[in-house]
Amino acid sequence: MGHRVVIVGGGFGGLYAAKQLGREDVDVTLIDRRNFHLFSPLLYQVATGALSPGEIASPLRYVLHRQKRTKVLLGEVVDIDCERREVILSDQSRIAYDTAIFATGSTHSYFNHPEWAKLAPGLKTVENATAIRSRLLLAFENAEKDSDHEKRRAELTFVIVGGGPTGVELAGALAEISRDTLAGDFRSINPADANIFLIEGEDWILPSYPPHLSVAAEASLTRLGVHTRTKAMVTDIDQEGVTVKAGGQETRIPAKTVLWAAGVEASPLAKVLAQRTGVKPDRAGRVPVEPDLSIAGHPELLVIGDMAAFLQDGKQVPGVAPTAMQQGRYAAKLIRNRLRNENTNPFRYFDKGSLATIGRNAAVAQIGPFRFSGWFAWLTWLFVHLMYIVEFENRMLIVVQWAYDYFTHNRGARLITGEEEQENRVRRRGRD
Amino acid sequence: MGHRVVIVGGGFGGLYAAKQLGREDVDVTLIDRRNFHLFSPLLYQVATGALSPGEIASPLRYVLHRQKRTKVLLGEVVDIDCERREVILSDQSRIAYDTAIFATGSTHSYFNHPEWAKLAPGLKTVENATAIRSRLLLAFENAEKDSDHEKRRAELTFVIVGGGPTGVELAGALAEISRDTLAGDFRSINPADANIFLIEGEDWILPSYPPHLSVAAEASLTRLGVHTRTKAMVTDIDQEGVTVKAGGQETRIPAKTVLWAAGVEASPLAKVLAQRTGVKPDRAGRVPVEPDLSIAGHPELLVIGDMAAFLQDGKQVPGVAPTAMQQGRYAAKLIRNRLRNENTNPFRYFDKGSLATIGRNAAVAQIGPFRFSGWFAWLTWLFVHLMYIVEFENRMLIVVQWAYDYFTHNRGARLITGEEEQENRVRRRGRD
Repeated sequence: MGHRVVIVGGGFGGLYAAKQLGREDVDVTLIDRRNFHLFSPLLYQVATGALSPGEIASPLRYVLHRQKRTKVLLGEVVDIDCERREVILSDQSRIAYDTAIFATGSTHSYFNHPEWAKLAPGLKTVENATAIRSRLLLAFENAEKDSDHEKRRAELTFVIVGGGPTGVELAGALAEISRDTLAGDFRSINPADANIFLIEGEDWILPSYPPHLSVAAEASLTRLGVHTRTKAMVTDIDQEGVTVKAGGQETRIPAKTVLWAAGVEASPLAKVLAQRTGVKPDRAGRVPVEPDLSIAGHPELLVIGDMAAFLQDGKQVPGVAPTAMQQGRYAAKLIRNRLRNENTNPFRYFDKGSLATIGRNAAVAQIGPFRFSGWFAWLTWLFVHLMYIVEFENRMLIVVQWAYDYFTHNRGARLITGEEEQENRVRRRGRD
Repeated sequence: MGHRVVIVGGGFGGLYAAKQLGREDVDVTLIDRRNFHLFSPLLYQVATGALSPGEIASPLRYVLHRQKRTKVLLGEVVDIDCERREVILSDQSRIAYDTAIFATGSTHSYFNHPEWAKLAPGLKTVENATAIRSRLLLAFENAEKDSDHEKRRAELTFVIVGGGPTGVELAGALAEISRDTLAGDFRSINPADANIFLIEGEDWILPSYPPHLSVAAEASLTRLGVHTRTKAMVTDIDQEGVTVKAGGQETRIPAKTVLWAAGVEASPLAKVLAQRTGVKPDRAGRVPVEPDLSIAGHPELLVIGDMAAFLQDGKQVPGVAPTAMQQGRYAAKLIRNRLRNENTNPFRYFDKGSLATIGRNAAVAQIGPFRFSGWFAWLTWLFVHLMYIVEFENRMLIVVQWAYDYFTHNRGARLITGEEEQENRVRRRGRD
């Protein structure tokens, strides 16, 4: 029996670690509570009806089925027994490890307003994406039915809280839907009348990007008709709209649909892990790690991706897919080197750049010394994402789907689905 | 203002009526509680992970967006006011008609055992399909985790109740998944060990098909390892399995997954409609109609598709998509002719034949005088379905997806998703 590696989480970090370890003399168990890997940078395309969930998800078993010494387990790790070196699942079963890699990512943070979670869904899971898709489409449907002017206006107002890449991409896609995709589909409303607000607390949208790209992104959004509000804080959210505070002044925006793209915090397992190992999580709940991504005093415990607090040149590395991939590969290399009694240099994040699309044909990009925006940036975005999706078995279909949608101005996956809706129906019918 | 036609239901019948009426001098309102038309003959492919819901659904608005005098409304019709000539929606709003076409289809019938609905889900909606997909995949996941032999056997036993086309297609696809798609994905179990039972009350599976095709279908299923049980009635279903009565003998099949493909009955609106017009529904709850598909004494009320009781040569016309399409087109023609004061011959169903696939490469077909099975029948099935999907904007993508799956032996959309699962997670996490 070889060295036993348990990987918790099958996102970009966990999956890349598992793939790399497939070539080594180790027994790997990958545990995830979902049976698929999710290409989360494209989740906003599911939320806006361009892609189906199946097109951006790959069954973990299938991705790893050639690695005969890799086992995939559907389950949720809720605790860890550091002394016996076992992770503990929600059904109380235990899996022993010699080295464990934790990669369960992050979840939304509503900044001490947990009651906002229901009112303003975020975009982390497939279920989030299909729920948001239903909300967006239902807003137009309800506006079509409503004859009251004020109500209709609120139905057609969409507020996106958070001006990072997710918020910007959502706002752009939503503008495209209302201006382009739905044009001609309704009889009582004009979908292009939709008001889209993007609220950002910092001085600029895309605050982590170079300033002139933020300016370019804001210009692109304005061209699409999106109202950006920077240096603005959301102070209240309810069923009827949001209250925004900017320049000492509070404004009310009546809106039936509010989406959350603001804060994230480490997944709850980070807290458990910190407690069991005696380290102190950072402000976002992340586990602080050593230069080799292990927990202080526990070289056998590695933490990677969004749940790791790793400072480089005094700054936390960004919470994006490339960081997780690089850390996943590093963790695999570290384990291999240790088994060979070889040294490993500390982890170093290599910044390949940042990219965000803004609707059709526009994007902003920062790649090495190059900073550019517009159509060429959009082509770059397309190319980079297609390259990454090469990891996916259905990559070619996404290309076909995108090409089809691009030329027909259509989004095929415009389905209002969901248990909730169904239950309502049953309940309603029960009354008859 | 022209003649007002209200169409209730956007399935095959309602959609074809709406399309045909788009060319006439009438104002059409199509009301459906879903925002999309569903290509339901391919629902089993969603349930078995071959296609995504978005690939077999088309937004009704998009399908009809060029018909400027056609309005699409998201809503559920729950009643009708025959005197004022208005249909009544669940939100109590009313829509006036000069002619109304009812086409809300059918739902499952559990033969006086409503408690079986939760235990043995049927396959009518997108939510049904994704729920079944989750159940099937979870069964293999649970078997991989369970070390108890008996439990594992029950996890890997699948019972399909009803040997009509849906049951046969589900059984074939499930056999293909366990023998082919999942091969090599698991470490503790062999997915090919799965036991698949198909239970049919009549003497043969596919009882509505010519006998020698039923024999061919059964032979194909047996080759795939499916156990068919004919002249067998399900007398009990619970969490642990089903009880089957055949030849006076009761047998117990321990099984964790039971799927319902047996009875159907008309949608609940049929009952309301019969009550308001004073006609008596047939045994399956369908509304009896005149030779021109109208309700006796109400020439302005037409009923088409699965909810209409229409006898031809003394026999109810089959509850399949072609019947609904033909009746939809007939209803449109009838309305046009009436406005022109022209007569219309009574409706006559033209039987184009029957087709059912059995896993990969096999099918049975009856087309006019031709009855055949095997690979050529499968090609015919493929061709016919591709032709019909030409109505769909994303037809080409299905071709690509099928070709891809066929050659790679893969099914890309193998996702375990759903609100329920998510809620469980939240609840569990709340305990930590």
